[in-house]
Amino acid sequence: MEPELHPAVAPLAALLGTWAGEGEGHYPTIEPFAYREEISFVPGPGKPFLAYRQATIRLDTGLPAHAEAGYLRGVGDGRVELVMAHPTGIAELAAGDVTTTTTPTGDGLVVHLRTTDVVGTSTAKDVRSVERTFTLAGDVLRYDLAMGAVGQDHQHHLSATLHRQG
Amino acid sequence: MEPELHPAVAPLAALLGTWAGEGEGHYPTIEPFAYREEISFVPGPGKPFLAYRQATIRLDTGLPAHAEAGYLRGVGDGRVELVMAHPTGIAELAAGDVTTTTTPTGDGLVVHLRTTDVVGTSTAKDVRSVERTFTLAGDVLRYDLAMGAVGQDHQHHLSATLHRQG
Repeated sequence: MEPELHPAVAPLAALLGTWAGEGEGHYPTIEPFAYREEISFVPGPGKPFLAYRQATIRLDTGLPAHAEAGYLRGVGDGRVELVMAHPTGIAELAAGDVTTTTTPTGDGLVVHLRTTDVVGTSTAKDVRSVERTFTLAGDVLRYDLAMGAVGQDHQHHLSATLHRQG
Repeated sequence: MEPELHPAVAPLAALLGTWAGEGEGHYPTIEPFAYREEISFVPGPGKPFLAYRQATIRLDTGLPAHAEAGYLRGVGDGRVELVMAHPTGIAELAAGDVTTTTTPTGDGLVVHLRTTDVVGTSTAKDVRSVERTFTLAGDVLRYDLAMGAVGQDHQHHLSATLHRQG
């Protein structure tokens, strides 16, 4: 029996499960790159959060690239918070909102989050801002990320299109 | 074939795998409590970190209690860093060191970490400091945590004894 979903994360229910697909990244300081990505959202049993994990593999080399892990919290009134750890030495807090929609292809939602705090260990790169938009329509999840880092203005960095697995 | 362990995390190799056991917690603001805990350390393939996950269940109620997820980074010269996300809305960065030993029951090590940054979302409790000590001897991993939170001085909060699984 599945544990009951906490009401605070009910608006996020359509995200639950595993998603995989491909994306591309660009930034002024690096060469553009393409990647394969898998992410998952798993409910904290009876708790007001979803556990989130992400990992990418570079398409050109086949090697693991970025990974991140954290929690997406429902805090009521359509507001959400994100707590994220990065193996690069960065931790971020973000806040935003979720809007649920109905699309021709099924349930839809948009989650928009922007960092409220970013901290880094003494060996981490300088990251100042991260902004994420998840746009779900049926079994297709699009993901955009903008970032202000390493002395560059906040700007678009990543976009990916993922499909529901299983 | 297992991917090769990055040299920066070689001193942490004895932690790899899954650990389970029981612990107890106390703090001036709460009743003492006992819990069952499972933690795992998984290498980032070819990367200088281990992915860390933890979850506890209250022994009195059988219900899920705390969870946390993050990364333990090897940064050279026996120094380590921790990046951790908590579903309670807290993110922490910690720094410390790892000391490897040989014990009568096998490989041993001590990892000691203390927060360098703690940040919380607008809905999170006030946590100011977290200090962790992992002490491994053979297949037994002891874990102590001290914390300064909710207006209380930094003090001992949790201890657990875990055993290597599988």
